[in-house]
Amino acid sequence: MVPEDGLIIAVIGGSEPSVEVATLAEQVGEELGRRGVTLVCGGLGGVMEAACRGAKATGGATIGVLPGSDPRAANPWVDIPICTGLSYARNVIVVKTGWSVIAVGGAYGTLSEIGHALGDDIPVIGLRTWSMSRDADGLDGSILVANDPRDAVDKAIEVAKQRRRSPAEESG
Amino acid sequence: MVPEDGLIIAVIGGSEPSVEVATLAEQVGEELGRRGVTLVCGGLGGVMEAACRGAKATGGATIGVLPGSDPRAANPWVDIPICTGLSYARNVIVVKTGWSVIAVGGAYGTLSEIGHALGDDIPVIGLRTWSMSRDADGLDGSILVANDPRDAVDKAIEVAKQRRRSPAEESG
Amino acid sequence: MVPEDGLIIAVIGGSEPSVEVATLAEQVGEELGRRGVTLVCGGLGGVMEAACRGAKATGGATIGVLPGSDPRAANPWVDIPICTGLSYARNVIVVKTGWSVIAVGGAYGTLSEIGHALGDDIPVIGLRTWSMSRDADGLDGSILVANDPRDAVDKAIEVAKQRRRSPAEESG
Amino acid sequence: MVPEDGLIIAVIGGSEPSVEVATLAEQVGEELGRRGVTLVCGGLGGVMEAACRGAKATGGATIGVLPGSDPRAANPWVDIPICTGLSYARNVIVVKTGWSVIAVGGAYGTLSEIGHALGDDIPVIGLRTWSMSRDADGLDGSILVANDPRDAVDKAIEVAKQRRRSPAEESG
Repeated sequence: MVPEDGLIIAVIGGSEPSVEVATLAEQVGEELGRRGVTLVCGGLGGVMEAACRGAKATGGATIGVLPGSDPRAANPWVDIPICTGLSYARNVIVVKTGWSVIAVGGAYGTLSEIGHALGDDIPVIGLRTWSMSRDADGLDGSILVANDPRDAVDKAIEVAKQRRRSPAEESG
Repeated sequence: MVPEDGLIIAVIGGSEPSVEVATLAEQVGEELGRRGVTLVCGGLGGVMEAACRGAKATGGATIGVLPGSDPRAANPWVDIPICTGLSYARNVIVVKTGWSVIAVGGAYGTLSEIGHALGDDIPVIGLRTWSMSRDADGLDGSILVANDPRDAVDKAIEVAKQRRRSPAEESG
Repeated sequence: MVPEDGLIIAVIGGSEPSVEVATLAEQVGEELGRRGVTLVCGGLGGVMEAACRGAKATGGATIGVLPGSDPRAANPWVDIPICTGLSYARNVIVVKTGWSVIAVGGAYGTLSEIGHALGDDIPVIGLRTWSMSRDADGLDGSILVANDPRDAVDKAIEVAKQRRRSPAEESG
Repeated sequence: MVPEDGLIIAVIGGSEPSVEVATLAEQVGEELGRRGVTLVCGGLGGVMEAACRGAKATGGATIGVLPGSDPRAANPWVDIPICTGLSYARNVIVVKTGWSVIAVGGAYGTLSEIGHALGDDIPVIGLRTWSMSRDADGLDGSILVANDPRDAVDKAIEVAKQRRRSPAEESG
């Protein structure tokens, strides 16, 4: 399979997932590694660790955007620890660094990351994650729902490539 | 009415609200000003401007946490412009600065702010805003739904006072 | 004396100053309060606390931009605690929120804040603070040196007013 | 030469360097690439671009921590663009991500980064950069001065390895 040159996709999710959600996250990581896509996540445990472990198992590269200042806080499957010292505000960086985002399960931090991504026009693919709607005008949260890890990665790569072909964004 | 000493409550919502939502935001601001509560918001237009205008009409004080670096970008009803230069990452600061948060209507930025608040254990009161649920385990988003602006402010003050009576939080 | 309407000036300095530096900071705060200028600082101890105490003694208003998430971590002379959760990255917000900056003594955090201010074209007045020069081309750090607290506040107000009269900045 | 496993070193400097400073930056990049050290920088032009170009010429890997939201704003020699959307506040992340920091020439942004690094106990090696001192107590800015690019990289690797052998830092 031809690796996806330079494509980075974010995987988001909580640090204390159920076994089922952790397994899904690991399979998402495996699938990303298999396609040669670089994974970016928050660098810690739970969904983040499971996804990184999966990616390394299939030869992928992993970036961990950490809340703190010590790179050794990253889980053992992070190749490149980015130290922000920004605490949870680092979530913004995780989603912005992906050409698209896969949300797996998810706690409130994940909800916040989905909000950031959608507000930034970064496509979000959901696997067992939040669904949401707005009372006032019936708009939904515009998440693409995936059936399984492979479907999530297929969809994430497709929308990431579409976005990469679009004109450069002004905010640079 | 006795002013609520030093109580700060956040009002969040989009910059292009419907007329109905803008009216609700203005009434929330009026009600906060009437109770002597200081309002904090993102400092720009739409819901933020309507809420500040309401607060000033009833003698309240207003803080605007701006995305940019020029205080003159604040709407005219902001007393204290805080310049962050952080772009949308400033949303975290808006919700953290309130003892509680009132969400009025809302776009994706608002969704992100709700996620931050809930992840931080900051109570959120919703007026015509997002509702959300998590597929994986049926948890809801824990927003207190208000019937009208007065009810929203009543609820927001009550939970803010409860939070202020709780032990100091370790993260300082 | 006519209060300086809506003028906010930042005071920066370390959390463990010498007695002499703490006294200078308190006098800077007193002088700002006397002129009706609002003081913004990092909200914690040392120079920040001394300056806030001085400002409140002469009727001034004070804003504390905190590194953490609990407003109760502010020193007792902070009127308006802004909670950022950004750790030391909050220093950027302190200097950006002032129309000008007074540096009193100072540790490495202060050096970083001076760098941010100068990089942002925010004028810096120094009282017993860092001096610096660039090897490569002999440029200096462009800090206005003050002789005493009163002189520092005079200079800070003058440059702040100049800046406020300049055209609005594009970054908003 | 044995590559330095997983070692990341930051290179900081302005976007409009003199020809001499740009040449030094390129040589620093070449030397880092030759030793198998990953380079992290702000991802844009000037010193950042020269250092990345040098690193790629000798087979190194490069990370660019961008101020904006579009990865395509990175210079062409960045392998891994990290999008922060934080504007200049992203400087904190550049220095924190390095086990040590090499400052080449430098404008005010560089001064701010040096301040962050020193405040965070991250060792700084200087090549034609700022020198600084504190009036109040005669302390200097604790920068290790290098004679040339090779010396800068030798010193940076030595202090980075020392820091990596030290106990994990609590802030994680």
